[in-house]
Formats: sequence, structure tokens, C-alpha cells
Amino acid sequence: MDLQLPKSEYPRVVIVGGGFGGIELAKRLKNKPFQVVMLDKHNYHTFQPLLYQVATGGLEPDSIAFPLRKIFKGQQNFIFRVTKVTEVVSAENYVITDIGKVSYDYLVIATGSTSNFFGNTEIETNAMPMKSIPEALDLRSLILQNFEKSLIEKDLNKKAALLNFVVVGGGPTGVETAGAIAELKKHVIPNDYSELDISKVNIYLIENSPELLGVMSPQAQQKAKDFLTKMGVEVMNTTRVLGYDGHTLTLQDKAPILTSSVIWSAGVKGELIPGLDKAEVVRGGRLKTDTQNLIAGYPNIYAIGDVAAIIDEETPNGHPGVAPAAIQQGHQLAKNLINISQNRPLEKFKYFDKGSMATVGRNKAVVDIGKIRFQGVFAWFTWMFVHLMTLVGFRNKIIVFVNWVWSYFSYDRGTRLIIRTFAKDRSIDYRSEVSSVKEVKIP
Amino acid sequence: MDLQLPKSEYPRVVIVGGGFGGIELAKRLKNKPFQVVMLDKHNYHTFQPLLYQVATGGLEPDSIAFPLRKIFKGQQNFIFRVTKVTEVVSAENYVITDIGKVSYDYLVIATGSTSNFFGNTEIETNAMPMKSIPEALDLRSLILQNFEKSLIEKDLNKKAALLNFVVVGGGPTGVETAGAIAELKKHVIPNDYSELDISKVNIYLIENSPELLGVMSPQAQQKAKDFLTKMGVEVMNTTRVLGYDGHTLTLQDKAPILTSSVIWSAGVKGELIPGLDKAEVVRGGRLKTDTQNLIAGYPNIYAIGDVAAIIDEETPNGHPGVAPAAIQQGHQLAKNLINISQNRPLEKFKYFDKGSMATVGRNKAVVDIGKIRFQGVFAWFTWMFVHLMTLVGFRNKIIVFVNWVWSYFSYDRGTRLIIRTFAKDRSIDYRSEVSSVKEVKIP
Repeated sequence: MDLQLPKSEYPRVVIVGGGFGGIELAKRLKNKPFQVVMLDKHNYHTFQPLLYQVATGGLEPDSIAFPLRKIFKGQQNFIFRVTKVTEVVSAENYVITDIGKVSYDYLVIATGSTSNFFGNTEIETNAMPMKSIPEALDLRSLILQNFEKSLIEKDLNKKAALLNFVVVGGGPTGVETAGAIAELKKHVIPNDYSELDISKVNIYLIENSPELLGVMSPQAQQKAKDFLTKMGVEVMNTTRVLGYDGHTLTLQDKAPILTSSVIWSAGVKGELIPGLDKAEVVRGGRLKTDTQNLIAGYPNIYAIGDVAAIIDEETPNGHPGVAPAAIQQGHQLAKNLINISQNRPLEKFKYFDKGSMATVGRNKAVVDIGKIRFQGVFAWFTWMFVHLMTLVGFRNKIIVFVNWVWSYFSYDRGTRLIIRTFAKDRSIDYRSEVSSVKEVKIP
Repeated sequence: MDLQLPKSEYPRVVIVGGGFGGIELAKRLKNKPFQVVMLDKHNYHTFQPLLYQVATGGLEPDSIAFPLRKIFKGQQNFIFRVTKVTEVVSAENYVITDIGKVSYDYLVIATGSTSNFFGNTEIETNAMPMKSIPEALDLRSLILQNFEKSLIEKDLNKKAALLNFVVVGGGPTGVETAGAIAELKKHVIPNDYSELDISKVNIYLIENSPELLGVMSPQAQQKAKDFLTKMGVEVMNTTRVLGYDGHTLTLQDKAPILTSSVIWSAGVKGELIPGLDKAEVVRGGRLKTDTQNLIAGYPNIYAIGDVAAIIDEETPNGHPGVAPAAIQQGHQLAKNLINISQNRPLEKFKYFDKGSMATVGRNKAVVDIGKIRFQGVFAWFTWMFVHLMTLVGFRNKIIVFVNWVWSYFSYDRGTRLIIRTFAKDRSIDYRSEVSSVKEVKIP
């Protein structure tokens, strides 16, 4: 069954995914001779760099998400549908979605990445990923519920597990999450849970390699580790996670950790769509493309952003999976599609590295911009400024700014609500959900 | 199994419910010779008067909720647990919760109210209530999903149903919700859904009695109706709803309405707890109390707020189920508990009517304060001011204020995200949830 879409005289570009790359591409095709069809399983764009703040109660989910339809308000050649693309049928130039078939002239895979558990299904089942807003909200509920449960748990081992928080993966997300939980421990939990012995709350950051923030400068790596250690996070480098059954985290050559909360930020992989049989999938589950983002083996299927790896002499492993790379690829692909329509020669993608940064906590961040490296208060303000400016939408910028100013002066995190209960472990049932209490007849 | 709580030399007051009444009571017992134990199924207080703005995308859920623990920060004699109370065992002075038994010296039922479907289970199954944050979020998702679905629905009857929104109940909640949907239709939907024929979107407000806003003055009633009609809402008074099967709303003596969204604000009833066998339950499922809020038949069990009806000569039906009544009863009961502890005579409850108000939309509200009655722009600003001031927490006041100022100047509603998919009707499956796309091996 074909999905009926408005007709157009122009070739149709189908973009799967409304992340940084997909949005940039679609915007650049405004008023150009294409019909642009975007398909996404959510009706909003997620600003992933701030997901950890949603998970730790610093921001509200709506502040870092933006309705996709609103971004393209007034763009005549843009069509959007909420749906999941389940298969690419490249021989006949259409994709299958859960609301019908959509044919394309050009197909762009911009699906981004998802958590990589490296085939360990036990960890995948029991650890918490943090790649989408529902996942971040689940994590927030889990953290808060564990504090509530710790007050009523009599078994000392289980109580310890509820108060041990483990972040696996020492990249920017892992560092930022561990820092945010440390701030919760310091400023929020003692006020909220005066019955609790705060010294029993432990935060671990586990990283396979010898350093945190692998992509950054040695100065940034060291300073981030110092910041975290000072904030009370136990940083465990060169430590390999073997398994996690929901209660015990097993490590190679080290004592296991009892914990009810393992936050998984140890890696990502491309979010692939079945059907691209000829495409080469390289390290990290990414689709190999040429320097025009064309997927190997197809004449009209492109990949951009995290799911794409432009494999070239200069970039044997592709570009880093960060927002600027996705945006630049989206921009470049828009130019090349326009070039194709005008029979002009195509351009090669050139990555402009804008640098990298990570925040650890209040007044603590690390920034590398080319050869310029700085850490501390100014780095923290830089981090906040860059993230505020990159947020989509003026309203979101204001709301996030107000929240940050508020948190700065009050040492508080406003939004620690368990709105949807998260219950993997239902030994204690916190599912007090919608209309669960029915009328009771009293005679 | 007893729930272990910190020991105290003072008598224990167990308060079930962290609404307006419960909070006021617990606050007033600060530094008094009581141990205060609050039990609530959520870890937050909900500011119910603004739930309809969460449901219609005007506010974020966290802005109108407030963590209960934070309210009582530093109150030494206050203990909080997230749990559902399932039974009162009055003969032995304890309540049963899903985390154990809790004994009391004084028990206060402050559970508030829940939607009343008047025994019609078909309507209860298919209509949307709006009495809690999860319910408001479900409703928001439903409204937005229906617009998305309408774009791909080919059956004309089903398409019509997706675009017909029916609010049942002409009290303040019904009037405010119908008005908010009308504003969505006018300012947001035409931008977001340019493919949609906006004239096909219909909003109905159905009320059993001849007037809207039954408790207010005739001027307010008439003006609210005029405002709504002008905004394109079809107001149907003296109309009785007979049934709703999820697709067709059946009315007495009138043509049925095809609709996928019926929002139920036609009545509430007390949220009762099993076990109070001797208590008298009066009209609206409320517990009958004397003028000291003591429940008939018990020496030490009280009820305050929406779930309580102080039946007296002056108030044969109890007081209105509004926040000021609950707050005043909580305040009064705190005084009387202190009086008991000091062997002083008890005071009778006196209700101070602060008036009533409802907003219909931008620059449109109606206010009655005693003999003073006004409508329009000034009423609207009064409504906003009163609601902002009543919101719990300084941060929430700021965030809501910023959101309102933003909406006023932009004519926009910021937060139209489908974060959790609501799917009663799964004929089209929009459940693209957490990690649903697994890795695909491409050979």
C-alpha cells in the first residue's frame, strides 16, 4: 500500500531521520527543485548533547526537543510523517514504513546512532541507555526511585546496590553524566533525604582505556579526571566490564560492584535499516560512503551524520559522530543534490573540526579548540554559551537559560519528578499510574 | 510487615495525599509536637488548575508539579514515602500500603478526587480523563497523534473522527480545555499542518445543564459562552451524553458525533480508600465529616479537601471542591490537632469564599469575586496573576511566566511533543519507543 503524499513535478528526496544532519539538508533544499519528504519515528528533533541533563533532573524534556513541523514552518516543498522506516527496497526505489510505501528519487539515511552493547545481551537487558528522550526520562525515574527504595530496603546488600551509581564509558556523555550525579549527591540528595546516610552514595565512572575523553587533549583528559575525583566520583580507567545481571556488575580483574543503576555510555553504533544489502558496514555499524556521501553500491542512496562513515585516505575510520560533522555533511549533500539538478560537477566533503568540549559540573569544563586548550570556569561558560546557541528554537534557548541561571544561584535541580514510573525490577511495585485507584463502594 | 519509620516520642499524624490540603496541614505542623508522615503515590504535588495547559501543549509537566520532598526541606518532624495506601484498618489504627503497614495516632484522608464516569464503563474505557500529569500527557499525545493520523487516513468517516474534538463537561476545566484547543486550531495547526483543511477541525463543548460554569454568575456564564462561540467552539448546553465506543459519541435527542477524542471533565468523585466501613459517603463520593473534619464514626480519622464533605446546616452539600477550601481545611485541622495536644477547645471550620474564575483564551477570562464581576482582558490578567502566585515554588513561577510571555507574543505553544505515545487504538501503531530498532546485520 502506497502512502499518499502530495504530488510534485520535482524529484523526491526522502530523508530518514530528523537529527542535525537531516534538518540541515532539508533546510538547505528550501525553494530548490526538489520535493523533500522527512520521515522520523518521533515528531520532534532531540538535542542529544543535553540528554544527560534531562536524565539527572536539570532540564525538562521539552526544553531540549523541538517539534520538527515547527522547524519547517512555511517551507513549501517539505512534507513530514511520523513513522518508522522498516526496509529499503533499492531495486524499486521505495522504502517500507509502518504507514505504507514511500517512493524516492534520492534516499538519504540520516538515522543517527544507537547504544552499542557489543553483543552483550545481558548488559543490553539490564543497563540503561541514554540516546533518546524516553530513555533519559526512564533513567531519571530510575535514579529517583532508587533513592526512594533505599529508605525502605532492609537488606543491606540491596540497599548498597540502590545507592551505587555506575556510569560505563568515559566519553563526553559518561563524564557529564557522572558529574551531574555527583552534583545531585552534593546539593540535592542531602536536603531531600535527610534520613539517608549520604556517605553510602557512591558514583563510579568506568572506562576501558587508560584515559577519559579519548578524543581530547591530554590536558583536558587529566583535568576532567581531577574534577571528577574532587567531586567524589571514583574514576576507574583500564577497567573492563564483563557483565551485569541487574544487581551485580562484573569487572575483569577487579572486585564486582553491587548496583541497581548502570548507565551505559560506552559506545554507539549506526542505526541501520534493513535492505541495503550491497552497502558496506564498517566499524561502529556505520554505512561506508564516498566523499559525496553516496553509499557504496547504490546510485542514489546517501548516508550522513553518525550512521555514515566517509572512508577516504585522510579519514580511514570516518569522521567523529558529532553534531558539527552531521550538519556539515547535510549542508554538503544539499549542495551536491542541487549540483546534480543543474548538471554541475560534485564537490568532495571537507570536515571542519570545531573542537570538542565537555562539562563536568558547576564552573568545571574542559575545552579544546584546535591548539587552544583551557579548563575551568571560562571553559564552563564557553560550554554553556555554545550549547545554548546550538539549541534549536528561541523559546528553548530562553527556557534552558532560565533553568541554568536558576540552578546556578540555587544549587538546585528543579525537575526531579517521577512522572512515569520505570520498573524493570518489580519486586517493589511503584506503578501508581493513570487512574489506578478505582471507586470503592462503602456500604 | 511494618514499614520501618524513624521513631518519635510524639503522636503520629499520617496524611494520605500531597495535594493542597495535605501540604497545608503538614506545613502548619512544623515544629509542633507531632510526627508527620505523608504518603502519596507520586513524589510530586500537582497543580491541577493548569493540567489542561499541559494537555494542550502550553506548559511542560514539570512546570506545574513540585517535588514533595523539596516543599518540606528542613522540616524535622516530616517523613515522606512514595506509596499507595490500599486499606485503612481503623480498629488497630494502621493503614496498609504497598510497601508495608503504617500505624497512626491520627489519620487524615486528603486523597482528593478522581474523574467520575457515573458508572458508565464504556465511557470510562474510551474517554480521556485529565486529573493527573500522566493523564494530561496521554491526552496531549492523543491530540497530536490524531492530527498526524488524519494526514494518512483515507476513510472519510475516520478522518472526520480524528479531527473532531469533544469536551464533555462545562465547568472551568471543560471551558478552559475547549478554549485551549480552539487556540491550537487557530494559531498552531495551520502552520504545522499546511496540508490539512483546517475547516474540517471541529471542537464541541457538551454540558448537561442549560449553562456553562454552573457555580459562577450569570454574567460570567454568558460571557464565557460568547467567548467560546466566537473562537469557533460549538457549545451544546442541555445535552446529555449517553455513550462513547471510541469512535461515535451518542447523545440524547441529538445526532451522534464521530470523534476519536472525548475529553471527560463532566464530574469528579472522592478518591476513597477501602476500610472506612462506618464512614458515610455522600453525594460525589465524598466522606461526610463534622465541622472539625472528623469523619463520622471514628475518633481519630479526618478528611480534608475534595474527598471531604463538611455537612452542616449552612453547607448541606459540603464545600466546593476547590484549592482554597482544601487549604483552609488543612490549616484549620492543624490548629485543631494542636488544640487537642494542648487540651484546648476545638474550632469549627469556616469557609472563606475567595471567588471563582475561568480563562477561555488569550485576553479572555471571567472572574467573580463576591459581588465584583468582570470579564475580558483585565479578568485574564487577574487569572494569570492568581495562578502564578498560587503555583508552588519560585522556579515554577518563573518558568510558567516565561512560557506565558513567550506564548503571548509568539501566538505559539512551545511543547507539542509526542514523548510517550498514547495508543488505545492500535490500528495504526505509533509505538516507536525506546530502543525499538535493533541492529541489523548486513552481510
